[in-house]
Amino acid sequence: MLISELSERADVSIATIKYYIREGLLPKGTSTSPTRAEYGEQHLQRLRLIRALVDVGALPLAGVRAILNAVDDDSVNLHYLLGTAAYALEPRPERPVGDPEWDRAERTTDELLAEFGWKVTEHAPARLKLTRTLATLDRLGWHIDPGLLRAYADSAARIVRHEFGTVDFDRPRAEVVEYAVAMTVLMENAMTALHRLAQEDMSGRVLDTAGQAPDAPHV
Amino acid sequence: MLISELSERADVSIATIKYYIREGLLPKGTSTSPTRAEYGEQHLQRLRLIRALVDVGALPLAGVRAILNAVDDDSVNLHYLLGTAAYALEPRPERPVGDPEWDRAERTTDELLAEFGWKVTEHAPARLKLTRTLATLDRLGWHIDPGLLRAYADSAARIVRHEFGTVDFDRPRAEVVEYAVAMTVLMENAMTALHRLAQEDMSGRVLDTAGQAPDAPHV
Repeated sequence: MLISELSERADVSIATIKYYIREGLLPKGTSTSPTRAEYGEQHLQRLRLIRALVDVGALPLAGVRAILNAVDDDSVNLHYLLGTAAYALEPRPERPVGDPEWDRAERTTDELLAEFGWKVTEHAPARLKLTRTLATLDRLGWHIDPGLLRAYADSAARIVRHEFGTVDFDRPRAEVVEYAVAMTVLMENAMTALHRLAQEDMSGRVLDTAGQAPDAPHV
Repeated sequence: MLISELSERADVSIATIKYYIREGLLPKGTSTSPTRAEYGEQHLQRLRLIRALVDVGALPLAGVRAILNAVDDDSVNLHYLLGTAAYALEPRPERPVGDPEWDRAERTTDELLAEFGWKVTEHAPARLKLTRTLATLDRLGWHIDPGLLRAYADSAARIVRHEFGTVDFDRPRAEVVEYAVAMTVLMENAMTALHRLAQEDMSGRVLDTAGQAPDAPHV
């Protein structure tokens, strides 16, 4: 197909396609004349993946490039590839030194991971994010109920079993990565939205005994 | 206490305290001389709440003011008050007109809410966020497994029952709101962090059969 058709089918402007080619994220098309090139389905698929990473994952080009390199290198196994994508999707919080709340929070994180038998790297961004969140709660004077934390972890484990059941790992690597990025970013949006909807419903049941706010709440 | 002690105990600078007073978010202290004022525990508690809303909830002052007004108005019941806080914490996505993916996604959201019997307002930001997420997945060509969506909703319902069990609704309204904001924002961070940790663990179990990446993955 010509670049105009590729642009239309991928819903990416011609200028952006040329930019991705210049940046080495997308291979050149096959020249058919000095001013024309032919693009194939592999270009379309690659554009879809780039778009998912940029639009949905909000990744900078360096992160996109790291993931595409891992997609293209067949010696990188799928676990490492998915990890490359997942770690790129999340800023890695700084680990502060000599911060008592952080140190307490880190022990809680480590104990929880040990209790659930989860094998994750020491530098997993999500591990540091959990620790930072617990440290912030501690600093604000809130004591997180250990049973509640365990309930979150338990529910995450159950959900991930379900998620992995919906992945077809025999599909091309690029598609599996695209799906994993969509799952990680978009499904977390869905999860937190559902969490707030369930909170609103429960709040109405428990607290709106007078039925004061049929169309409320709002700001 | 003097403003210096208030500043130290609340971990908020004197300049910021004076700014909050000028903006009407914090009541003035009781003047004890032309240059001195006395502050009480209620100032400390109010500062804690403002700090939670600004630092954790990243709320603009208008949102903080709306919540504080609702806290101070005893005719506003607790359900409405918590809703005011929750709705302020989330931008309300625009509802596009004549967008087929959006319309399909909205039907999915409505059916899910009906299936779970959740009573939420039509304009709940989380309801629109869920719809927008589903519309984006649709636009990217991913078909969300209905069983997976139901599993998320089911897990949100279970978690919220647990969360509400940890709230003491007999505490002062300001404290309940502060706890609810912490729960909503910080616990969602913890939930998504745990989700990613569970994914990494599961990915290692399912995909890293060759044990290629003991210290991986990373970018």
